[in-house]
Amino acid sequence: MRIIVDAFGGDNAPLEIIKGAALAVAEYGSTGLDVLLTGREAEIRRVAAQNGISLDGIAIANADDVISMEDEPRSILKEHKGCSMAEGLRRLAAGEGDAFVSAGSTGALIMGATFIVKRIKGVSRPALAPLLPGSRKPFMLIDSGANVDCRPEMLLQFAHMGSIYMTNVLGDGQPATVGLVNVGTEDTKGGELQLAAYALLKKSGLNFVGNVEAREIPHNAADVIVADGFTGNVILKLMEGVADTFMKSIKGIFMTNARTKLAALMVKPYLKGFKKQMDTSEYGGAPLLGVSKPVIKTHGNAKADSVKNAIRVAAEFARKDVIDQIAAAVQQDAAQPSDNSSDN
Amino acid sequence: MRIIVDAFGGDNAPLEIIKGAALAVAEYGSTGLDVLLTGREAEIRRVAAQNGISLDGIAIANADDVISMEDEPRSILKEHKGCSMAEGLRRLAAGEGDAFVSAGSTGALIMGATFIVKRIKGVSRPALAPLLPGSRKPFMLIDSGANVDCRPEMLLQFAHMGSIYMTNVLGDGQPATVGLVNVGTEDTKGGELQLAAYALLKKSGLNFVGNVEAREIPHNAADVIVADGFTGNVILKLMEGVADTFMKSIKGIFMTNARTKLAALMVKPYLKGFKKQMDTSEYGGAPLLGVSKPVIKTHGNAKADSVKNAIRVAAEFARKDVIDQIAAAVQQDAAQPSDNSSDN
Repeated sequence: MRIIVDAFGGDNAPLEIIKGAALAVAEYGSTGLDVLLTGREAEIRRVAAQNGISLDGIAIANADDVISMEDEPRSILKEHKGCSMAEGLRRLAAGEGDAFVSAGSTGALIMGATFIVKRIKGVSRPALAPLLPGSRKPFMLIDSGANVDCRPEMLLQFAHMGSIYMTNVLGDGQPATVGLVNVGTEDTKGGELQLAAYALLKKSGLNFVGNVEAREIPHNAADVIVADGFTGNVILKLMEGVADTFMKSIKGIFMTNARTKLAALMVKPYLKGFKKQMDTSEYGGAPLLGVSKPVIKTHGNAKADSVKNAIRVAAEFARKDVIDQIAAAVQQDAAQPSDNSSDN
Repeated sequence: MRIIVDAFGGDNAPLEIIKGAALAVAEYGSTGLDVLLTGREAEIRRVAAQNGISLDGIAIANADDVISMEDEPRSILKEHKGCSMAEGLRRLAAGEGDAFVSAGSTGALIMGATFIVKRIKGVSRPALAPLLPGSRKPFMLIDSGANVDCRPEMLLQFAHMGSIYMTNVLGDGQPATVGLVNVGTEDTKGGELQLAAYALLKKSGLNFVGNVEAREIPHNAADVIVADGFTGNVILKLMEGVADTFMKSIKGIFMTNARTKLAALMVKPYLKGFKKQMDTSEYGGAPLLGVSKPVIKTHGNAKADSVKNAIRVAAEFARKDVIDQIAAAVQQDAAQPSDNSSDN
């Protein structure tokens, strides 16, 4: 199992990426995992040496260019086709690795994966599907921003892809539950998109639990929360924003005076567990589903531990037959007449 | 100043509504405020007597019917036209009061206000605009669910209405800042709706701060956060859901053992202040903007204090010339050629 890792993606590249790769090889190397880093080889070797990081079990594929957050996503196909991300995607497409991990520009990764690695046959658009902290366990949000304008059929595909991933990679074998983000639980709720998507999901054969109001999303209303990419992006970022506000307020309260500072010391070990639960980096990043090979996007500010987790998740993704199952589900849907229920 | 209050709207009607009305009259009666309750008169008098609530300064307009959350919103115009909410709206339309407050069905209130009280001339659709807790101060979210499918011109109207309300009712005289919910801050971001709305807002003359990512919403990115009703509803409910999850987790941590329980006691007074800040009922409810008279929706689970606050806010709304200003702004926008910038 070889995981290709973009050594120059994200705010903390290349040091934290190299560190994360070394951690992954140290921890999972015995299971047959190794890493191929893409990026400026000389710089990778220099940074590793300077920081005493062993490159055992780590190969390097040189790429001189880097694509930044400010670059146009489509430039990965032209002006920046020599960047570390494009190099990794090409090596993935060529079968020189089993999965690809990047902490770089999300837009560039979606664009590059779609056109270099290519979509699974029949998939309209790949979707970015992060795992988010629920009150009992993590859940998947699909799409979280790859596609701002969606058609109902795309939401059905997101549901299939998310369900297959969650059932196989994170699940206990039981079919993952699927919910549609909506303004109410009744089947008459929502705009044109939601009404049409509801009808498709209802007869999809998926474990569809119906519409989910946003209030219930953090309470594990479903394993897979389906939304258009605009709504999904709002959900993803608002959860971050509210959690951040909350944490700052709690910290502020604990810093009020000597008494509250003492109280803080007393609950500190338990708050740590809570912070860890709220910290999405534990889950290792978001799969980009609908692409013909496993691609994982980690957070732009990922540090070594997150990178290590992302590599672990990428390996799990590659081990399961998620992509074959997505291909089969999409083919089956396409074969069904859209204006005719299959269960009549 | 007379505020008409639906005595039979919400989960805690009529007791908490009557209590809230009595509190408002006791606190603001000296400023010339009185209340007209609508609903079953005999029941109102019985509940007031049983609970020792004075009805001084409170008039009653009888209405035998009640519209529930389960009833179709449009039934307020037909089957349930005799309900307490419809009666209140008719009295408002007839000039028998200066503003109307209800904790009842949001859908029915929007429908009833639109067709009984009528829209301000030129307003496409009224919008529900709650005040939400930001990290420094409350902000307005418009629309929060009245209109799930929106056109760009509607978002421009929401922005005008929200800005006028926030500047006059809550502001310090400075023009309120307006932000558009989007998936990124650049003007090239978003779907068709956001791109077109951005262009309209840019040349609107409003204090437009540009696109706002959902992450920044709780951090007071703008005084008025503009979104289509679907997105707004997701934002409103997700903020509630995440805050609720958070509060439960913090409580759980404090209940772990004797040590953490002691810590809880030590920070309790400060946590209370924080809970109060997060509690939207302090702000008294959401104005329904675009209707030709002031209408305030309070939360369905509003208790007496929230109802009192809603009555106070309704009075403030009625005292300012918000509705005339909205009418003027909407007329001015309609007079502008839509494909031609006015500042060239």
